[in-house]
This record gives sequence, structure tokens and C-alpha cells, in this order.
Amino acid sequence: MATQGQVITCKAAVAWEPNKPLSIEDVQVAPPQAGEVRVKILYTALCHTDAYTWSGKDPEGLFPCILGHEAAGIVESVGEGVTNVQPGDHVIPCYQAECGECKFCKSGKTNLCGKVRSATGVGVMLSDRKSRFSINGKTIYHFMGTSTFSQYTVVHDVSVAKIDPAAPLDKVCLLGCGVPTGLGAVWNTAKVEPGSIVAVFGLGTVGLAVAEGAKSAGASRIIGIDIDSKKFDTAKNFGVTEFINPKEHDKPIQQVIVDLTDGGVDYSFECIGNVSVMRAALECCHKGWGTSVIVGVAASGQEISTRPFQLVTGRVWKGTAFGGFKSRSQVPWLVEKYLKKEIKVDEYITHNLTLGEINKAFDLMHGGGCLRCVLSTDA
Amino acid sequence: MATQGQVITCKAAVAWEPNKPLSIEDVQVAPPQAGEVRVKILYTALCHTDAYTWSGKDPEGLFPCILGHEAAGIVESVGEGVTNVQPGDHVIPCYQAECGECKFCKSGKTNLCGKVRSATGVGVMLSDRKSRFSINGKTIYHFMGTSTFSQYTVVHDVSVAKIDPAAPLDKVCLLGCGVPTGLGAVWNTAKVEPGSIVAVFGLGTVGLAVAEGAKSAGASRIIGIDIDSKKFDTAKNFGVTEFINPKEHDKPIQQVIVDLTDGGVDYSFECIGNVSVMRAALECCHKGWGTSVIVGVAASGQEISTRPFQLVTGRVWKGTAFGGFKSRSQVPWLVEKYLKKEIKVDEYITHNLTLGEINKAFDLMHGGGCLRCVLSTDA
Repeated sequence: MATQGQVITCKAAVAWEPNKPLSIEDVQVAPPQAGEVRVKILYTALCHTDAYTWSGKDPEGLFPCILGHEAAGIVESVGEGVTNVQPGDHVIPCYQAECGECKFCKSGKTNLCGKVRSATGVGVMLSDRKSRFSINGKTIYHFMGTSTFSQYTVVHDVSVAKIDPAAPLDKVCLLGCGVPTGLGAVWNTAKVEPGSIVAVFGLGTVGLAVAEGAKSAGASRIIGIDIDSKKFDTAKNFGVTEFINPKEHDKPIQQVIVDLTDGGVDYSFECIGNVSVMRAALECCHKGWGTSVIVGVAASGQEISTRPFQLVTGRVWKGTAFGGFKSRSQVPWLVEKYLKKEIKVDEYITHNLTLGEINKAFDLMHGGGCLRCVLSTDA
Repeated sequence: MATQGQVITCKAAVAWEPNKPLSIEDVQVAPPQAGEVRVKILYTALCHTDAYTWSGKDPEGLFPCILGHEAAGIVESVGEGVTNVQPGDHVIPCYQAECGECKFCKSGKTNLCGKVRSATGVGVMLSDRKSRFSINGKTIYHFMGTSTFSQYTVVHDVSVAKIDPAAPLDKVCLLGCGVPTGLGAVWNTAKVEPGSIVAVFGLGTVGLAVAEGAKSAGASRIIGIDIDSKKFDTAKNFGVTEFINPKEHDKPIQQVIVDLTDGGVDYSFECIGNVSVMRAALECCHKGWGTSVIVGVAASGQEISTRPFQLVTGRVWKGTAFGGFKSRSQVPWLVEKYLKKEIKVDEYITHNLTLGEINKAFDLMHGGGCLRCVLSTDA
């Protein structure tokens, strides 16, 4: 390609400082170094983690930066030694890397990969611990190793999944974060069995994906809990069979659920990021075996707590990141499942805008009626 | 037998009120009703749970009562409908019942049994919700459904395990609580695999049984943590390979262990009942898969806490009661393992006294050099 080995100047939404509207800028994107891949992002969605870092509450947040981590695109060029993708490949950037070689990848027990974490955690690339983004020489940091709010981005080769080119990128971009997180929390982390009673706290995209995953796993009851009763109608389409609004009850919500389920649920999922709800999610589980999975990301410094008796009497407290999916191995499999209509994706997309309208997209996300807003970047 | 159907007057150690020395009294033990078994206790050991309730800190504690739950004896008589044991059978009372019929027993997921809990939790028998113990007509409450600090006790038929009569009762009485709790925490709850790195917090009987269980499971390193360095010599005999005294470190103990193990242990066990240690035990686990099991019983009202990030990045927090063993099914199997010299029991017995010396036995237990003190009841 004509751009290979060259700096590309393109449009990107830059977060100059916390809580200030993102600004569309002409950004210089350096060529990929050894082990790196430059991707032309075609579609990117927004997720609450972007908003969390943007808010300034994320202690790892670095500014100025380019946010965004749920996207799809096409490889523009690759650096030295990259063998897993080549220019023209359709890809999904993966904030959770998979190198296949580190202690984590080889353990067979986790999808977390340690290879590039020390760099992606501080907004740079591993090889030279520098950013590939700049504006007139000023460094703009990476975010989560993905930075998809840009027409071009550079990622580590261990952080990009090659997918079936038949898949519509404006849809499967969602398989970069929220939908797999919910499905995987059920399938990989909790391993919900047929006949189980499941509680889902928070009916946003991740919570709905949990419900969908639970339905496909054969759960007999899927109880959705949300303080916005309007969400129930949509939630039914994703498998939620019962709805509880905690605001309509005087008793603690865990007690309401225990009473409703003859002792508690088999599995619960916290998809909000609220530590009080995390406690309720654990304590609504059935004595002896109930398992609660924390999916939501709490604000920095907040802590969960409970009486140890809850665990001694058989409840299990776990968490999940990217639903336990191994990113490069399993995102392509999820894309195939979508193409075979075995999992929903389109149904989560409530809005379509352009990168230039990204601040409006954030407003929509916080507004309530939005599940996922997909931005095209070629606007 | 001559005593069958009769009230038996025998010696028992009565806790009249919290924190007052136990008093050896002549107690009337009523005959077993339907579904009940009267057992002649020959040997009983002491456990910290007895001391906890005696201290008055247990909100379920009822006085006056007869404490004790780790013992062995011989069935004296049985009530109507009892089929699992008969007079003359050698038995171990089981504070954790196993009915085989309730939701819990049938779940295949837990050893907790719900059948008699509503009665044993308030010191009475299920059939008429009354105690079988009295002194000149005054009710003395049961404790944990066992009350083994007595020459005779009455238990539910679902709370007694028939064992091989070849087993020495002055030894296998320990298989009523502490030793199975530690072994089972490793084998049933954590399911430690060969090559694992294990941390054990607290090197009393339960902690040493955890170490023994971990050794038999093939753990490669077994790190014992205790504030009494004198315990290390004994602990080596049970499988502990490394010792850490938190008092000798300035850094938090979880950080010391993480540094020592290239990222943390695979499994940790809290065998003390201290909520701060429970947190350390979780946080010394390896990111991605480390599992922490709470074995110790914390004081009422105390809470555990941590940052949810600990769980989201793959650590698992669980607990165990009686090591996850199904009591009536598996205590006899543990007795056989002891007879085949596959598990230690004798090695935990540091003192032998009589029921009349029970207050001295409690002093010994709190003193430090004592693992288990076995009392004969025929003094």
C-alpha cells in the first residue's frame, strides 16, 4: 500500500483532559514497529469503560489520549516479524491480548495475558515504550492497547483477532468488548447449567448479553434487576423472564430474590460496577452452591464486603474480564457464531453516528435508551 | 440393654453461662425419640468453635448447654424408625448432618444438609423441638446437634456416622471436625492439583490438616504462615515446606508472598477466623486463577472486604464447612484411610485428659503448644 512505512495523518477523537468534550483532530499515526499492526478502523462503538477513563476517575488514565476499545477494521500494514495478520485482513482489536507464550496464556486457567500489559497500562507500545500517536510532535497516549476512536490505530500483534471477511464490520465491532463479556461470564466463568436460576443485575448491553448467554445455556429462570423499569420490555427479547425493580421494594433486594427463589439463585451477575450491588448479587445466591460473578468495573478505591459466613456456607465469589474468552482464538469463533445466527449482535445496536458526533454518542450512552451506538469513522 | 427406654443419669460438663468454667454435673439424658440415637461418648476432643460459643460471642449460643462436637462413641439405643445404626455400633457424631433427601443433599453440589438445621441451631431436637438433657427438670440445651462433653448424648439419626469397630475411638474422634475440615478444604473445595503452590494461614490442627492434604495432592510448595515461629518445626512433619512469620516483615504479608512466588500462590487457606487474614489470603493469590478458601470461623458481625478488581482479574473467593465432606457417607471412608495409614490422626493429639479436667483442656488449647487434647469420658 502507498501508506506502508509512512506516517499517516488522519482524524481521531482526542481526549485532551478529563471530562472535557473529545475533540476531532488531525493526528499523526506512526508506522507499526516490530510486532505491531496498523489498523484502519472502520467502525467503533462506545463502552462505559471509555467514559470511566474519560471522567478522570481511572487512576491509570493518561491524558491526552485516544480512547475506544470496541471496534473493527482492516489491517493497513504490519511491522517486522508479524505473522498472524497481513494487510487487508479484517480484524477486531483486542484490549485483552493473547500471546500464547506467557505464564498466563500457558496456564490453561485464564484468558488474561501478561505480555504487553506493562505497556498498554501506561499508554505506550512495548518495543520502545513510546506512543505511535502524535499531533505536531506532541505525544498522544494509547488507551487499553486499542485506541479505536481514530481512523487509524497501532496495536500489538498479540492484540488483534483476524476474522471472517464476510462479517459486517459495522455489526461485529461489538464483539470487541461488551457482548463477549456477558456471554463469556455465563459460559466460561460461571458455567451455568441447564435448569439454573440466574439473576442479572443491570440490564445494559453486558447484562443483556448475560441473559442471552444464560438462555442459551438452558437457564430455567432469568431474573433481571434494574432501577429503570422501562428496560424490561427490551430485556425479554434477550431472555429475561422476570423483572425486579429494587425501588419498588422496601426489603434489601437480596432478600427479595431469596424469597422469590426458595433460598436464592444458582448464579448471579453484577453488570453495573456498583460495590453495594456486588454484595447484593453475592448474598442473593443459594446457600451451598450459589456463585456470583462480578462483571462490572467499580470505581477506583471502592471495596466489596460481606460476612465470611456467606462463603463458608458455600457461596462462591468470582469475577471475569472479557468473559474469560481468549481473544485472538475465540473472537473469530464468536464472529462465526454471529454469522450462523447463533448469537445476537444487531439487536444491541440502538444508534448509528459518525466519529465526528462522538460527544453526542456519549450523551446518548448516559441517557438510558441507548445500548450500543456504533460510529463510522469515514465520515 | 438395661438402659434402653430409660432416662440415663450421667456426668456431663455443663456451660451454665458464657465464660464461666464448665461444671461437671449429673445430667439426665432422656431416651431417643423417633429418628434419634443415644450415644455413649467414650472420647471427645475440644475445638475452637466450642471455645467461641462458650465465650458468649456466638449469637446462636444458648445457655445452659453441653458443648462438644468432635468425638466418638458407641450407640446405646435408638428411637423408632432408626435404620442406619443399631445399639453397639461404633459411631462418630456429625455436627454437619446428611439426610440424603433434602434439596441440599440431592443437589450434588454441597455437603450442607438442611434437614435438622432449624432444630440444632437452637439447641433442641427436631421432632418435638425440646432438649433431651436436663438437670432435675431444668432444661440444658444441645449444641451443634452433638453435645459430646457428656458421657451420653442424643443426636438425630442423620447426624451420626457408623464406623469400622476396629478403629481406636480415642484417635478417630478427631475425624469429627478439625482434621476432615482441613483435608477436605484442599481435596473437595479447592481441588488442589499436583505442582500447585499453596499458602496456609494459621498452623493449628486445621491448618496442619490443610498442609497434609496439600502434600498428598502433590503441591510443590506449601507455605505456612503463623505469628508463632515455634510452630514451624511441627508443621514440617505435616508437609509445610516454607515458613513465614508476618511479624518479621514490614510489608503486608500478601505482598511478601506474592514476591516470594513470582506473582502469588495457586491456592490459599485461611485457618484462623481473622477477617484481615482472610483478605491477605485472597490477595496473595495469583492473578488469573488463584483461589482462596475461608476455613476459619470469624466472630459474629465481622466482615471481609477487598477491591473487586481482585476478583475481576481472576481470583476466586470461597469457603468450606467440614471440608465439603458428606458426613455420614465420608467419615467412615476417612476412618478407613486412617486405618490404612493414608492420613495422620495420632500426630494431632498432643494431650490426653479426662472429662473432669475439661477446663484445664481449654486452658491448654489457648496456650499454644496444644493441637488436640482428647478427653476420656469414663473418668
